[in-house]
Amino acid sequence: MIVQMSRETTPEQVNKVKQFIENKGLEVKDVSSKDIFVFGIIGDTKTISADSLKAFDGVLEVTKISTPYKKASRNFKKENTIITLKNGLKIGDGNFVTMAGPCSVESEEQLRIIATEVKKSGTRILRGGVFKPRTSPYAFQGLGIEGLKLMRKVADELGMAIVTELMSKEYLDDFVKYTDIIQIGARNMQNFDLLKAVGKTKTPILLKRGASATIEEWLMSAEYIMAGGNDNVIMCERGIRTFEKYTRNTLDISSVLAIKELSHLPVIVDPSHAAGKWSLIEDLTLASLAVGSDGMIVEVHHKPEEALSDGAQSLKPEKYEHMMRKLEVLGTALEKKVL
Amino acid sequence: MIVQMSRETTPEQVNKVKQFIENKGLEVKDVSSKDIFVFGIIGDTKTISADSLKAFDGVLEVTKISTPYKKASRNFKKENTIITLKNGLKIGDGNFVTMAGPCSVESEEQLRIIATEVKKSGTRILRGGVFKPRTSPYAFQGLGIEGLKLMRKVADELGMAIVTELMSKEYLDDFVKYTDIIQIGARNMQNFDLLKAVGKTKTPILLKRGASATIEEWLMSAEYIMAGGNDNVIMCERGIRTFEKYTRNTLDISSVLAIKELSHLPVIVDPSHAAGKWSLIEDLTLASLAVGSDGMIVEVHHKPEEALSDGAQSLKPEKYEHMMRKLEVLGTALEKKVL
Amino acid sequence: MIVQMSRETTPEQVNKVKQFIENKGLEVKDVSSKDIFVFGIIGDTKTISADSLKAFDGVLEVTKISTPYKKASRNFKKENTIITLKNGLKIGDGNFVTMAGPCSVESEEQLRIIATEVKKSGTRILRGGVFKPRTSPYAFQGLGIEGLKLMRKVADELGMAIVTELMSKEYLDDFVKYTDIIQIGARNMQNFDLLKAVGKTKTPILLKRGASATIEEWLMSAEYIMAGGNDNVIMCERGIRTFEKYTRNTLDISSVLAIKELSHLPVIVDPSHAAGKWSLIEDLTLASLAVGSDGMIVEVHHKPEEALSDGAQSLKPEKYEHMMRKLEVLGTALEKKVL
Amino acid sequence: MIVQMSRETTPEQVNKVKQFIENKGLEVKDVSSKDIFVFGIIGDTKTISADSLKAFDGVLEVTKISTPYKKASRNFKKENTIITLKNGLKIGDGNFVTMAGPCSVESEEQLRIIATEVKKSGTRILRGGVFKPRTSPYAFQGLGIEGLKLMRKVADELGMAIVTELMSKEYLDDFVKYTDIIQIGARNMQNFDLLKAVGKTKTPILLKRGASATIEEWLMSAEYIMAGGNDNVIMCERGIRTFEKYTRNTLDISSVLAIKELSHLPVIVDPSHAAGKWSLIEDLTLASLAVGSDGMIVEVHHKPEEALSDGAQSLKPEKYEHMMRKLEVLGTALEKKVL
Repeated sequence: MIVQMSRETTPEQVNKVKQFIENKGLEVKDVSSKDIFVFGIIGDTKTISADSLKAFDGVLEVTKISTPYKKASRNFKKENTIITLKNGLKIGDGNFVTMAGPCSVESEEQLRIIATEVKKSGTRILRGGVFKPRTSPYAFQGLGIEGLKLMRKVADELGMAIVTELMSKEYLDDFVKYTDIIQIGARNMQNFDLLKAVGKTKTPILLKRGASATIEEWLMSAEYIMAGGNDNVIMCERGIRTFEKYTRNTLDISSVLAIKELSHLPVIVDPSHAAGKWSLIEDLTLASLAVGSDGMIVEVHHKPEEALSDGAQSLKPEKYEHMMRKLEVLGTALEKKVL
Repeated sequence: MIVQMSRETTPEQVNKVKQFIENKGLEVKDVSSKDIFVFGIIGDTKTISADSLKAFDGVLEVTKISTPYKKASRNFKKENTIITLKNGLKIGDGNFVTMAGPCSVESEEQLRIIATEVKKSGTRILRGGVFKPRTSPYAFQGLGIEGLKLMRKVADELGMAIVTELMSKEYLDDFVKYTDIIQIGARNMQNFDLLKAVGKTKTPILLKRGASATIEEWLMSAEYIMAGGNDNVIMCERGIRTFEKYTRNTLDISSVLAIKELSHLPVIVDPSHAAGKWSLIEDLTLASLAVGSDGMIVEVHHKPEEALSDGAQSLKPEKYEHMMRKLEVLGTALEKKVL
Repeated sequence: MIVQMSRETTPEQVNKVKQFIENKGLEVKDVSSKDIFVFGIIGDTKTISADSLKAFDGVLEVTKISTPYKKASRNFKKENTIITLKNGLKIGDGNFVTMAGPCSVESEEQLRIIATEVKKSGTRILRGGVFKPRTSPYAFQGLGIEGLKLMRKVADELGMAIVTELMSKEYLDDFVKYTDIIQIGARNMQNFDLLKAVGKTKTPILLKRGASATIEEWLMSAEYIMAGGNDNVIMCERGIRTFEKYTRNTLDISSVLAIKELSHLPVIVDPSHAAGKWSLIEDLTLASLAVGSDGMIVEVHHKPEEALSDGAQSLKPEKYEHMMRKLEVLGTALEKKVL
Repeated sequence: MIVQMSRETTPEQVNKVKQFIENKGLEVKDVSSKDIFVFGIIGDTKTISADSLKAFDGVLEVTKISTPYKKASRNFKKENTIITLKNGLKIGDGNFVTMAGPCSVESEEQLRIIATEVKKSGTRILRGGVFKPRTSPYAFQGLGIEGLKLMRKVADELGMAIVTELMSKEYLDDFVKYTDIIQIGARNMQNFDLLKAVGKTKTPILLKRGASATIEEWLMSAEYIMAGGNDNVIMCERGIRTFEKYTRNTLDISSVLAIKELSHLPVIVDPSHAAGKWSLIEDLTLASLAVGSDGMIVEVHHKPEEALSDGAQSLKPEKYEHMMRKLEVLGTALEKKVL
């Protein structure tokens, strides 16, 4: 930690800060220049908060040096984390894993049609929402636990794994029982109560980035899950909120590289929620593969204009098939399997 | 709703869209120009989603005309909502209501010292966190229900009301019993499960704006609470996330005016979380009064450097007292009482 | 300057960085912890760039300690800069100076009507655009030098000073001759060529903040002007670009306080361009006075619906008069004259 | 254009708006619902501004339907624009064109070393700055016209084309004479005076997107150049300013697709300025090729730690060579030549 204090500060004020630090058993090293007082703090700074230091008179800035996440950090674990699903499929092993399905599970028939199509195109993880975080209280809120059981049934018929979003810890037991991957949605990325709950399971967690979460905050939310004992966290970039409104969100494709540098966790991309327009999905997914993502999650619907949610960003099955074939060509060039 | 379609679209594609709309019992009016097809949809457009329309080939853009919130809208209710607390204090009646206290409740002694000071300065609502949404799983998470009971005890001694944040619906009954205002924090503004739960109570809700929530999304979250039957919602601006990092967030002071235009709900300002620096709090609070806010909520700590959270943005009691006197001068000029 | 290097770095790589710094005549102080190498650089770091250091293998982060601006910094000059116009009016002396007029100068008659009105309300600085930075090449681009002469003529009749925007240094001589304050617009805040040119004059400069400029970049642009020898810089906050679209830009009212903390230069607020809606102007201007701004600049038009630009955000004269009277009430309470 | 008015509006107020529109020779069509008045305006709405309409009492919102750019629009010209340089190299024909070189031209030797290396890797367009837009007035400002002549000399020796940034129209003649592509930098994207000047030449223009420019504003700046008669505009995405600070800017890779949908102009990507870190460049460039960009522009330096600017984001020649070979593999898979 580095503390900057104004040159106007009195010696008493400076000493007060130094003693505060030393009383915590830490060492202070002076790196001041003639314009400004600067101190480095040596030792385990977990016992001291930047906020406390900023509360002292004369303190201008406090810069944290060590990352606030530990278990999620590549410093803590060098080699990439590979997550193995119940059905043996691996995420993070260098290949490109695909997840696809409808935004919302609407009926058994709808789900089976779509699941069958994406399976045919080569995808082995079925996505679908049964509890839906909708901006409007008057919009379709999902089929609930019945929808979850439907997903399991259809997935089992087709030999697929499932990923679906959990919004409340009251349904956690059912999710652990029925799902292969539990999704924490962007709006709940800092619902710490929910993060602690899923941290106590061993089920793989797909952790979406909040629309305005920094990469550090996103990793801190992974840390919440890992601190509870669940190391199976898959990061998912799904666009951030910016001034640009042509796309629903701005896909921060560089964040894939940031996660790879800072962490050992796998990271995938959700181009559907980032773009909000089906016409952009194929090219953004190709870019995600090229940039080094471990996979993608995409919305598919056979009748998008009748979808109960997110029709605008859903690919039709024939467009999904087209994309999968193109991903394979690209994957072959880059020596990655598309699964 | 206004639908734009490309001039390239075939007559069949255009008709498909028109029939889709008419099948919902709505009327289509043509306002096309020579460059673009444009249709207005007349009728109750709640039965149709922009997303569905965007899924059709040829559709370029769909613009919603009616606001998606109803009960929260000033169209629905012209006169300002005034919220009366159990102790008779009113919020939204044209005066400026103050709420103050520590970021976290740390101990009975700490709470009593701070509460006594802010009461002396004229404040009658005590703020304090007992469940803390901390970015780090390793940081102080709050005293929990014991802290809540402490708040009630100290507030009762001093004749104050209390406001504190609820993070999980499992504690809802205790919050209804012990608090006067339940706070929904910025990170949970779209935790719809929690919004639905507090919507079933009659306790006033302080709804903080999410750091990246648009004003419309913020009002939609109020709508979730009101749709459940609880009309006692107080909006709270606490800064939005932007590229500027001098302040922790950017206080969007214009949002106070937006809420006043769009809604009948009261709106207050939280300068502490917006600025993240105690040195800016007084002036930002004066500005909040001048702009027309119904009140403020501010963090106060007698030893900010030893605070377990948010020391950097906490005012010392003597600075709080200074601010309150200045608010009174300003309030007198603007014919508002500072309570 | 603080340099962070990965603990993975080899001793050779660390030494390379150290020698690079020492070769510049600077001293390196070690404040490393067990997770990370950290070095403070002591001495005049102007001779070394963060970018150079980041180019070395193993360097993770370089943090600048000293501010990059000198002459604009409050460290360089403690007391507030007060700028005196040719007509004796002072900006930055603790009072609140008002500037008002049409967005564009459209005709002599239009200008005289509006100038007469704002003068009657007590305003002594006339604003008006004669070179207009329009997003569209097909929109009205301003009357040019003829408009400038018109402004001078009307202002002289009424005993007013004028402020108008310079877009190209080819007209600099005329601007120096005819104006009292030269405005550098938000879009040209980093047109360094133009900044250097106005830095060679002694005319006061109104430097608008770019829509996505950080406070530091904004001060660096002031530094460009001051480095050329012109210390008469007035900063002007006019809203920043964020995700929120209810207002045209988001008025960053905290930036007034930031400028006051970091610099000795006066700072005013432009609520018209921030809000983009005339209905918000009065309350935002009151807030600007309350927060501590040195003045404001506002658009006024007697027939806003026929204005050639910015009609939506222009106040009618009677609304301007209403605002001025309310500013006086507030000013009296805060012991500031409204001029 | 669609006008929304409050249901509270009086019939007189509504009529005033209607007459105002009809007086411009345009037709008004009513698409009101019971909550709100809504009018579509039929005809050539270029003669009416949204701002004028918003100035009327009762008007809530005005939505533009037609795009404000004409010549830059794909509606205006269906087929892709292909730009041919003096040396015959084509941009926008489906292949992937590479541009590389130092951030700043520092000396003839430095330039020749780097140019020789990038040429060897297959690149035929040399980039390099001779007028540098630096945030600090104390930083290296470029070699000026002498640097430009140096670039021409070295490029001619190697049979390369050159691209370099113009900051002031006073040097326009020299730029037309010596360069193959004139760059308009991000900070000058709305320096309309400069845009008009280069619009009068026939030299290809590389138009960088401003850090906070919307896609529409960026296309409007292209329109400025085209309105002057120069259709040879190459768009260049170089990252936008967001809250995320891990990268210098956030590469908005979706903007490549937006330009392709909205316009016929070619678009390339500058990953160096977007990322600000050399370690991310290769993967971001691969993603740019995969997403459908027409090319890239990248900074290369043989001794980045001694570069006078942007060392942190410059690739060493051997890393550039590595990237070029990987681009070729990807290009082959996608049937695009890397030139």
